Amino acid sequence: MNTVMPHWLTKRAYLSPEQVAIETHEGEVLTFLQLQEKSKSFARKLASVGVRSGENVGIFSGNEPQMIIAIHALSYLGCTCVLLNMRLTETELSYQIKDSNMSYLLASDSEYKKVTEMNVPVEVLSFSMIKTKQEKEVSLVTEISLDDPFTIVYTSGTTGNPKGVVHTYGNHWWSAISSALNLGLSQNDKWLTVLPMFHVGGFSICMRSIIYGISMYVMEKFDVAEVNEAIFSKNITIASVVTVMLQQLTDNLQDQAYPETFRCMLLGGGPVPKPLLETCAERNIPVFQSYGLTETSSQIVTLSPRDALKKLGSAGKPLFPGQLKIHQPDEDGVGEILVKGPMVTKGYLHNEQANTESFQNGWLATGDLGYVDEEGFLYVVERRTDLIISGGENVYPSEIESVLSGCVHVKDIGVIGKKDDKWGEIPVAFIVPSTKNVLKEEILKYAEKHLARYKVPKEIKFVQELPRTASNKLMRRELVKMLS
Amino acid sequence: MNTVMPHWLTKRAYLSPEQVAIETHEGEVLTFLQLQEKSKSFARKLASVGVRSGENVGIFSGNEPQMIIAIHALSYLGCTCVLLNMRLTETELSYQIKDSNMSYLLASDSEYKKVTEMNVPVEVLSFSMIKTKQEKEVSLVTEISLDDPFTIVYTSGTTGNPKGVVHTYGNHWWSAISSALNLGLSQNDKWLTVLPMFHVGGFSICMRSIIYGISMYVMEKFDVAEVNEAIFSKNITIASVVTVMLQQLTDNLQDQAYPETFRCMLLGGGPVPKPLLETCAERNIPVFQSYGLTETSSQIVTLSPRDALKKLGSAGKPLFPGQLKIHQPDEDGVGEILVKGPMVTKGYLHNEQANTESFQNGWLATGDLGYVDEEGFLYVVERRTDLIISGGENVYPSEIESVLSGCVHVKDIGVIGKKDDKWGEIPVAFIVPSTKNVLKEEILKYAEKHLARYKVPKEIKFVQELPRTASNKLMRRELVKMLS
Repeated sequence: MNTVMPHWLTKRAYLSPEQVAIETHEGEVLTFLQLQEKSKSFARKLASVGVRSGENVGIFSGNEPQMIIAIHALSYLGCTCVLLNMRLTETELSYQIKDSNMSYLLASDSEYKKVTEMNVPVEVLSFSMIKTKQEKEVSLVTEISLDDPFTIVYTSGTTGNPKGVVHTYGNHWWSAISSALNLGLSQNDKWLTVLPMFHVGGFSICMRSIIYGISMYVMEKFDVAEVNEAIFSKNITIASVVTVMLQQLTDNLQDQAYPETFRCMLLGGGPVPKPLLETCAERNIPVFQSYGLTETSSQIVTLSPRDALKKLGSAGKPLFPGQLKIHQPDEDGVGEILVKGPMVTKGYLHNEQANTESFQNGWLATGDLGYVDEEGFLYVVERRTDLIISGGENVYPSEIESVLSGCVHVKDIGVIGKKDDKWGEIPVAFIVPSTKNVLKEEILKYAEKHLARYKVPKEIKFVQELPRTASNKLMRRELVKMLS
Repeated sequence: MNTVMPHWLTKRAYLSPEQVAIETHEGEVLTFLQLQEKSKSFARKLASVGVRSGENVGIFSGNEPQMIIAIHALSYLGCTCVLLNMRLTETELSYQIKDSNMSYLLASDSEYKKVTEMNVPVEVLSFSMIKTKQEKEVSLVTEISLDDPFTIVYTSGTTGNPKGVVHTYGNHWWSAISSALNLGLSQNDKWLTVLPMFHVGGFSICMRSIIYGISMYVMEKFDVAEVNEAIFSKNITIASVVTVMLQQLTDNLQDQAYPETFRCMLLGGGPVPKPLLETCAERNIPVFQSYGLTETSSQIVTLSPRDALKKLGSAGKPLFPGQLKIHQPDEDGVGEILVKGPMVTKGYLHNEQANTESFQNGWLATGDLGYVDEEGFLYVVERRTDLIISGGENVYPSEIESVLSGCVHVKDIGVIGKKDDKWGEIPVAFIVPSTKNVLKEEILKYAEKHLARYKVPKEIKFVQELPRTASNKLMRRELVKMLS
């Protein structure tokens, strides 16, 4: 049965009109009633610009209330939001714009100039430009079908172009409900949102806010002192961060402990080293490590603080409606991690090949390797072949290789991750230059033009040749040895 | 999309093996792991008796852990549980047994003798008889489809025979989730279960327990002193009761206030009078009044304590995924209450007529009358035509009239409810006797044989004739005047 329910924001504004929906670090406050009114008004202005039901519309914005208003407005119009990573280059952005066939791109005021300078193949409108429009009388969505698409977020794979992950309302709903069944739910919760909302990790907080009726505390940038200050003085009860941020937050704490009311540090971006976990225990920071993908609409496997030290390195157990199995485990029990559940995307945007490769009988093949211990705890042994997680962002060596192969100075290239104190990992490129007198700067300049900054190799090492198999396959493990 | 998830009890036992699932007033304790093991074992024993997947199986039991085990066992076998009201007479019980085409009736040990003496048209097995059997190796359900039926509960209507309300797993799931979104969710919750689990009000606690991973505190009978004692000494955080029980609980309290940890008194069975609400406020009892039907799998509209005095007499607002509208309101805004949402049954068991009458475009016509104020709060003006709610049980005048019309001493009959300090309401029968010398006792004897005790008129008033319209329709409002 297709499940239908009232439009989430309309319903939440009706149930909790005076409750604070959004509070920004700069002091702006919006109740659910205000958020609803602004979103409906913005929807009518979008309609007068020409946005129509059923269209895909891009959003290019940092964390700010108007981004959330734009998302709900598009939902009211029956559009799907394509959430764009602000760090993308012109080439990357143009690909996603074309692939998603978006009708408009909505940019935050601060990003508008940058986007228009990039000369992208779609009409770009700033939030302010839309706000000046007259409202057009259109009928807004009153009921949501959980099977309808809500967002598209692009994710890179080990091969080929980035794929558009389509999230239905149901995916986001089930993600929110699954998380609540694990973390509990209180009307007094206030969720710190410093992860970018163009990723599912940040976006999912926006969903939880209206589904649970709780406040989100929105920060545009991760500033370690300001985040700690907010946690101490703003009644934050939950925060979502990645491991590299948690390390900085504890370093910044000195001898202080987090307030008693802070009940959950939800963590993405890989397992936490034991010393950091111990520090968190001392500082009253309950750490919930998790495993998730864009395809699972945020966490699908979570480790509670009470199991953290006992199950060091584990990502935990799948959330209540989720399932997990290991495909073709080897003698050590390690195999590909498959996941299933109503929070898992039904597929990639018009990409039959990727869908056929990744989905079977409702199970998604994650590409990650792992095993499950006798008590049912998941250990992720290796993220998707050679995935580099740098400051919480996924970086695919194959994508960097593919792009830099297009540079005239590069004859051959292999990329791997290198451990880094600040970012967790950084990408390092081994390059066979096309001529002897190539300068690293020339290649970096090319990289900066075509790759988002976090994907640009932080180190370039010139080599005579790359370790390849007889069938010419790159042996990344050999590159790792060459690092040390 | 049909939503699939792991079997709830299996998943809960995997996530929270050591957590207490059931605690009885007599001191018995079962963890989720133990509950799972006992339920699976009982399922295999049921299989060896001959219970097969796809069958409807009756349960006739008071609140006790073995009843819950039997329910989960039937779920593991892929059977549907027909939950039988223990107060039914032979006639009523036999009707539900035949109508549901059940293969077996499972009776608690204490009820077994009573049931077998009733000579019902199905094989009756006591819990103990089944426990002596060998386990049979059968494959148990590992995944639940939310569209599959889980329970059948009979409800009487204004006309005709009782109807079997079919609840899917999804109905119970959404009911539990909707309630959590309203009441919040904490792993420390312990939910007092004194309402009978053969009604959805009690049964829904059993569902919330495994879905949330919280304890239920099971009491077989409502004893006012014992319930208060449990709330004071057993860390109860939530209790479900009906209005008549709440009145007794507060009367019994004298000057005490409930402990701080007690966070919710969830109330069915009609609105609460102001003096009782005020007493509850003084005694630290947060009262959540609610409106629901068997068809809505428990509450669908709920009033929070903060609105209780401001919105006296209101049942509140529909839960997050639920919707509500008033059909053909009159000039005062009063009309039939229609409800919609994923917790609403898809229909009555093989009863096309009732389904056609009650459902339209996903909306259920409740038969109850009400209006919605300008802030969206529901006021129930009149429960389904002339419904009498006596001690939390629904009593339909039409059913009593229909049964007693079969008594030779009754020439004509009209039944209405009368306010009662103890029960809220009691049924009163106005009877035109067939001859002058009929004794009330003779009619009562007939009534006791054919009607559950709570349906037997508490008063009989002999009259010369009944107030009827020209078209011979009974004017119940005229009977009400004759009461005073």
